[in-house]
Amino acid sequence: MALIVQKYGGSSVADAEKINNVARRIVETKEKGNHVVVVVSAMGDTTDELIQLARQINPQPEERELDLLLSTGEVVSSTLLAMALGSLGYKAVSLSGAQAGIETDASHSRARILRVEPKRIVRELGKGNIVIVAGFQGITEDMDITTLGRGGSDTTAVALAAVLKAQICEIYTDVEGVYTADPRFVPEACRLKEVGYEEMLELATYGAKVMHPRAVELGELYNMPILVASSFSDKPGTIIHGGVSMEVRNKVRGIAHDLNVAKITVVGVPDRPGIASAIFEPLAKANISVDTIVQNASINNITDLTFTVARSDLDKAMSLVEPVAGSIGARECVSDLALAKVSIIGTGMQNTPGYASTMFRALYEQGINIQLITTSEIRITCIIAEDKVKEAVRALYKAFDLEQAEA
Amino acid sequence: MALIVQKYGGSSVADAEKINNVARRIVETKEKGNHVVVVVSAMGDTTDELIQLARQINPQPEERELDLLLSTGEVVSSTLLAMALGSLGYKAVSLSGAQAGIETDASHSRARILRVEPKRIVRELGKGNIVIVAGFQGITEDMDITTLGRGGSDTTAVALAAVLKAQICEIYTDVEGVYTADPRFVPEACRLKEVGYEEMLELATYGAKVMHPRAVELGELYNMPILVASSFSDKPGTIIHGGVSMEVRNKVRGIAHDLNVAKITVVGVPDRPGIASAIFEPLAKANISVDTIVQNASINNITDLTFTVARSDLDKAMSLVEPVAGSIGARECVSDLALAKVSIIGTGMQNTPGYASTMFRALYEQGINIQLITTSEIRITCIIAEDKVKEAVRALYKAFDLEQAEA
Repeated sequence: MALIVQKYGGSSVADAEKINNVARRIVETKEKGNHVVVVVSAMGDTTDELIQLARQINPQPEERELDLLLSTGEVVSSTLLAMALGSLGYKAVSLSGAQAGIETDASHSRARILRVEPKRIVRELGKGNIVIVAGFQGITEDMDITTLGRGGSDTTAVALAAVLKAQICEIYTDVEGVYTADPRFVPEACRLKEVGYEEMLELATYGAKVMHPRAVELGELYNMPILVASSFSDKPGTIIHGGVSMEVRNKVRGIAHDLNVAKITVVGVPDRPGIASAIFEPLAKANISVDTIVQNASINNITDLTFTVARSDLDKAMSLVEPVAGSIGARECVSDLALAKVSIIGTGMQNTPGYASTMFRALYEQGINIQLITTSEIRITCIIAEDKVKEAVRALYKAFDLEQAEA
Repeated sequence: MALIVQKYGGSSVADAEKINNVARRIVETKEKGNHVVVVVSAMGDTTDELIQLARQINPQPEERELDLLLSTGEVVSSTLLAMALGSLGYKAVSLSGAQAGIETDASHSRARILRVEPKRIVRELGKGNIVIVAGFQGITEDMDITTLGRGGSDTTAVALAAVLKAQICEIYTDVEGVYTADPRFVPEACRLKEVGYEEMLELATYGAKVMHPRAVELGELYNMPILVASSFSDKPGTIIHGGVSMEVRNKVRGIAHDLNVAKITVVGVPDRPGIASAIFEPLAKANISVDTIVQNASINNITDLTFTVARSDLDKAMSLVEPVAGSIGARECVSDLALAKVSIIGTGMQNTPGYASTMFRALYEQGINIQLITTSEIRITCIIAEDKVKEAVRALYKAFDLEQAEA
């Protein structure tokens, strides 16, 4: 009997009718003779509503308290889903993250899974139950409830699939799979039937909203195939796995973009050893992810250091960097919120010249100024003004012949 | 440093403003130099709303799932209260029932506390925290979440007070204390300054909505003084304790009434040994509380057996009793929903004749028919038609000179 892990996002369980719809989909999988473990997010906007309620009471709620508060959202949706399965005549049991054995570190609001102890899940599956697990949450050694931060429920699902040695981890969401570009920008964008972990990782990291990169990373680590598909249709979706066929690898697979970009420039930094760590250590300690970092060649031993962070982290990052900048003798710190990233991604790029120049030319021809450039082996990213991002994606889509892509 | 346990009901934490109000009250207690442990109910109508949501999905949700769902209500209010205290500059930590060490049996929806393991609470108090505990819930040996049923949060509070050896357990609610009769029926009814456990137990059991009898019972068992007062005023409330002064004991202390009464009569029961247990065992197994039981003297070895249950249990009780009635050769089962109980309560009654006859005469003079009578050492209860209950309470209030009572 195969085991399948499914995950349903908040929009898929937003109301009673949608929960019943999800229950019917789960039953189909069960009826095909599978064990089923289901991970759910909180209903619709529950998490945001709870955060608002908290802020009304305390503008800066303790993260420990906020985590315990937010964890209730997924418990509500998982119990309701178990009840929906019950009313269809199927045995189901819902488990909180703690009950499901999701053990995490104590970094509240962005905890990392340390270990999954799946004894309880295995026992419930053995009793013939469909097991519903509250996503996005776990428990620390001290029995405190944590939340996993962004992409938390996807991560819960992939972690459970890995530990339970599932056949596949199916992520159901409100999009029909992974596209070559955002269909809202490029209506002719097509769905990829399959994509490699690394490509998906770059697509996800660089703005494709389909799935969170940390869940993709975990999938790659355990070589767990992941299906991304819509919970509202029966379209086949996109499979993310390791064994993508050779011939599709040798080109640009997709275009990603991300509007959640803020830039900080530390101007007039004395170019001496230890400066970079003086600036970035406090950010790391505050758990702020620094993305692109660019340091110009120095003139007269003075340089500028620019880096990007998520917009929501900008204020905190500035408050940490400004005193450091002062103490190391930099001239000033400036920040810019109105930025976006646009990236081309494909495993074929690394050995093939010309991608970068094609990209830069396509942007140039649209009169789009490139503020920063960053590359990986399988990705080239340009940081541009936010209001140019749609044009940029369309231009790159044409430039790389993605309308011809074999989806 | 004294320890005080406070409990705030759902109406006291119904919105952000009320939660802030409760936080200020807690701070006052803390500032007097006390350790404070606070038990909270779910905000306002949360529990009812969650039940409705569940029923929308499954008219008969699994009790295990419903318990896990409902437990989120108290977690939400306790985290918000901890945040409110944080915003006032006080260190507070909220704990779910499980985290607080409330260990229960596995009777979902009406679990009993087996043990409280207060290690975590003690540790948090030691760190100078105000500890907020989600009421109404606990955890089984198998790590399943239970709810304690009616009066659950009061019971949590008294249990914690007992285990932590608190100075007092303060129950804050939307009434100003215990009254000699329901002020909605008898506007001149007065608040009791103090009342004995047993009297309170009878008052609570027989309909005074102020506090649940199981919490009073627990208070008596551990001799824990309990203050009942309003969270919306600074009136002194009523203290429930064991040492009520002798002179106030020798009379009727209060009049209680209860509209939550349904009656089942098994008609034409053969009068032979084992009949009563055949009828009541299935009810006990289903955890249905049977209240008054009356069996008439038999004529020709045939008798009628009448008993009362809570209205919400009537359908379930009938479905259990009817097949038994058939199998033991009884003629039929009839039920009646439209009943009420009215009781006079006072520890003095037991050694003083005349209370019963005064009660029966007062009801008779109002033309109120008594359907069943039941008594304890300190209580006399009559079951009457529901639509007569207000008249009955007023008549008894006069008959026992409660307007003269020393409150």
